[in-house]
Amino acid sequence: MSQRELDNLVHSIASSSEQLSIPERRRFLKSGLVMAGAAAGASLSAHASDVGVPPNVPPWSKQLGRGVISHPYGSPSPHEAHVTRRTVEWLTADRIASISFTPLADLKGIITPSGVVFERYHAGVPDIPPDQHRLMIHGLVERPLILSMDDLMRFPSESVIRFLECPANGGMEWRGAQMDRLQFSHGMLACCEWTGVRLSTILEEVGLKPDAAWILAEGADGAHMSRSVPMNKALDDAMVVYAQNGEMLRPEQGYPLRLINPGWEGNTCVKWLRRLEVGDKPWHHREETSKYTDLMADGSSREFTYVQECNSVVTSPSPEKPFRQKGKYMIEGLAWSGRGRIRHVDVSVDGGRSWREARFTSEVLPKALTRFALEWDWDGGEALIQSRAVDDTGYVQPTYRQLRAARGTNSIYHKNAIHTWKLAPEGVVSNVQIS
Amino acid sequence: MSQRELDNLVHSIASSSEQLSIPERRRFLKSGLVMAGAAAGASLSAHASDVGVPPNVPPWSKQLGRGVISHPYGSPSPHEAHVTRRTVEWLTADRIASISFTPLADLKGIITPSGVVFERYHAGVPDIPPDQHRLMIHGLVERPLILSMDDLMRFPSESVIRFLECPANGGMEWRGAQMDRLQFSHGMLACCEWTGVRLSTILEEVGLKPDAAWILAEGADGAHMSRSVPMNKALDDAMVVYAQNGEMLRPEQGYPLRLINPGWEGNTCVKWLRRLEVGDKPWHHREETSKYTDLMADGSSREFTYVQECNSVVTSPSPEKPFRQKGKYMIEGLAWSGRGRIRHVDVSVDGGRSWREARFTSEVLPKALTRFALEWDWDGGEALIQSRAVDDTGYVQPTYRQLRAARGTNSIYHKNAIHTWKLAPEGVVSNVQIS
Repeated sequence: MSQRELDNLVHSIASSSEQLSIPERRRFLKSGLVMAGAAAGASLSAHASDVGVPPNVPPWSKQLGRGVISHPYGSPSPHEAHVTRRTVEWLTADRIASISFTPLADLKGIITPSGVVFERYHAGVPDIPPDQHRLMIHGLVERPLILSMDDLMRFPSESVIRFLECPANGGMEWRGAQMDRLQFSHGMLACCEWTGVRLSTILEEVGLKPDAAWILAEGADGAHMSRSVPMNKALDDAMVVYAQNGEMLRPEQGYPLRLINPGWEGNTCVKWLRRLEVGDKPWHHREETSKYTDLMADGSSREFTYVQECNSVVTSPSPEKPFRQKGKYMIEGLAWSGRGRIRHVDVSVDGGRSWREARFTSEVLPKALTRFALEWDWDGGEALIQSRAVDDTGYVQPTYRQLRAARGTNSIYHKNAIHTWKLAPEGVVSNVQIS
Repeated sequence: MSQRELDNLVHSIASSSEQLSIPERRRFLKSGLVMAGAAAGASLSAHASDVGVPPNVPPWSKQLGRGVISHPYGSPSPHEAHVTRRTVEWLTADRIASISFTPLADLKGIITPSGVVFERYHAGVPDIPPDQHRLMIHGLVERPLILSMDDLMRFPSESVIRFLECPANGGMEWRGAQMDRLQFSHGMLACCEWTGVRLSTILEEVGLKPDAAWILAEGADGAHMSRSVPMNKALDDAMVVYAQNGEMLRPEQGYPLRLINPGWEGNTCVKWLRRLEVGDKPWHHREETSKYTDLMADGSSREFTYVQECNSVVTSPSPEKPFRQKGKYMIEGLAWSGRGRIRHVDVSVDGGRSWREARFTSEVLPKALTRFALEWDWDGGEALIQSRAVDDTGYVQPTYRQLRAARGTNSIYHKNAIHTWKLAPEGVVSNVQIS
């Protein structure tokens, strides 16, 4: 295209957007899409004479860029440097037994990039040379085994896309504390493709003794992090995994080996997995007594409440993704259930008085994040935005009132109540609770 | 577990593996799994007294590791530093208009990590500030538009998992040259989750004029890389995407915006997308005349041969993944088709004389990589290992003989013949051709 043709084009676009009549503009918006002719016109008139913006040729179109394998292992653009894990300084006493959060507001689709998957450690990240790592399987088995990573890689493998969530996700909100970012209110959440060996395959190999009913999974980290897993989960869909999103696990995700119990509390998915002991009853180690139990209103505690029930959250708008001016938007979010697939998601903009069904905009896989969206024409007024997910067991995500009626307010774990974002007239979004 | 219990365990495991009787061992292998009792015994006896290997407690279990957000954006373990893109120095004259290859042999599942997705540039990677990037849609449209990234992000979006392949993948092998690594023979291939706006949505917004039949997509790189896309693809599943594997596109993948034509030649998926011009006939720019045409045996050229037909390759064993000793292994690989889903994959270990059906070990999605596997008991002898994929249109991946009968040997592009790895008695794997 010659510069003259471009100049003509500038003229024709500028003319056409200036000449948009009222009916024309109505039709434009009525098409159900979000682009404002005025905005495009503004972009054009503001920038048509600038170098660096079409239809003029920007400077990066007039020079050579960097060559291949200048980055043998690539990284995000420097312009995306704000998309990182973050921690909440006051939440834990130190950074060794602490947590960082996934930047959900900036993510798209259902795959969480491995580099920003939330972290949770009880004694920090160990550095384990894979050729020295071993998995020991012993206890009530016929043939105890010690497997190297090379051994494990020869077993039949499978790859599944499943979410991973800390049961403390949103735990600060049981009593009404509101985190001021989506990253902190829901960011102990991720969804990855996991590759490894079904635990049932390994158990078949070692042979279970008749009384075998539970398995203790222990990590090689300094905390010897351990959880008891009942045999029905072990023989169902539990996996010993070595890869995540196509490559070997990241160090903070358990390199070189971890357990994945799809749909269950993240802490049961023991990282740096070193030992599987088969027994006839559960263990009661630190992380399943002092932690990861649900303290009820009457002072009793529920133990072994593994499943992450159906949940959802709107990711845009959110505190990190305010709206700027009235007009058409996508209300977008994520839904997930530890029981199976998401069946449908409803969205409310009036704090739950009325609901509209959202559509799915990603693959809908069992025990995986599922992305939903709803077009919405924001009139610029205050709104209370919520999402409510239903899974394929028919379970409906509860309100805070329903959740507290069943569970009280002493809990830290398993907060899956319907979440509310308050959208203020200026477009700013804040975290509020509606019972 | 106390040290004394561990010592007892060492004794019991050592005893049990020493005492494995012949029938016991037969049963062990007959279970259909790969783990050799002898190997576990060997690991144990070699290492039981070493510090660093179970059942002794390794040093990294006795100390604290690094804390959260020591890496706000994480990276693979240093032990995986060999898993990178690589280039073939002699293949292109420089690194600015060149290609690097995905390290397929070290990858698992179907998602290709963004950091190792192959690169192909015609003028290097431009650095584009997203707030200055614009997409111009003009030509035979009712309402030409210039969109900013903010504008585009307000359109309805979708996320799909689709493969991306350069049509030159394996192109060196048309006349029998054999690349000595899987990374080089098939590594212009990746599969990612892509998020963006359907091109049909954008075209609906601008309104097509009656004669609109083709679209020219042009990149903002120094090559002004451009390809003609027919309207039926544009209105079918083509997408203007800004995210890949959950985060914004990597710079070398087109940040901040690219076209994705699912199942079609990678070069049509124009990166750094700046301009979409609607016309009544195709353009004949450099990259669709001097390149990306198929030179037939009679000297004529086929133009606009966009679809990447059904293909497959065994990833293990492969030159990078030799076998070490006879015994049970997984033969594993990837299959894909630009027409739809993979229906089934057969594997041969005798150069195509006999075949066994492989099973799928990943999600089976349309126009996506699909992972397959077959258990195989290698007797230690020479083998010729092949895979043959069939897609849901019924298309069967051809032999070299069939491909050359139809297309001759002048081509560079669209080589999808059945590939053969020769496994030598010592386990080394090389690239051979069987017609």
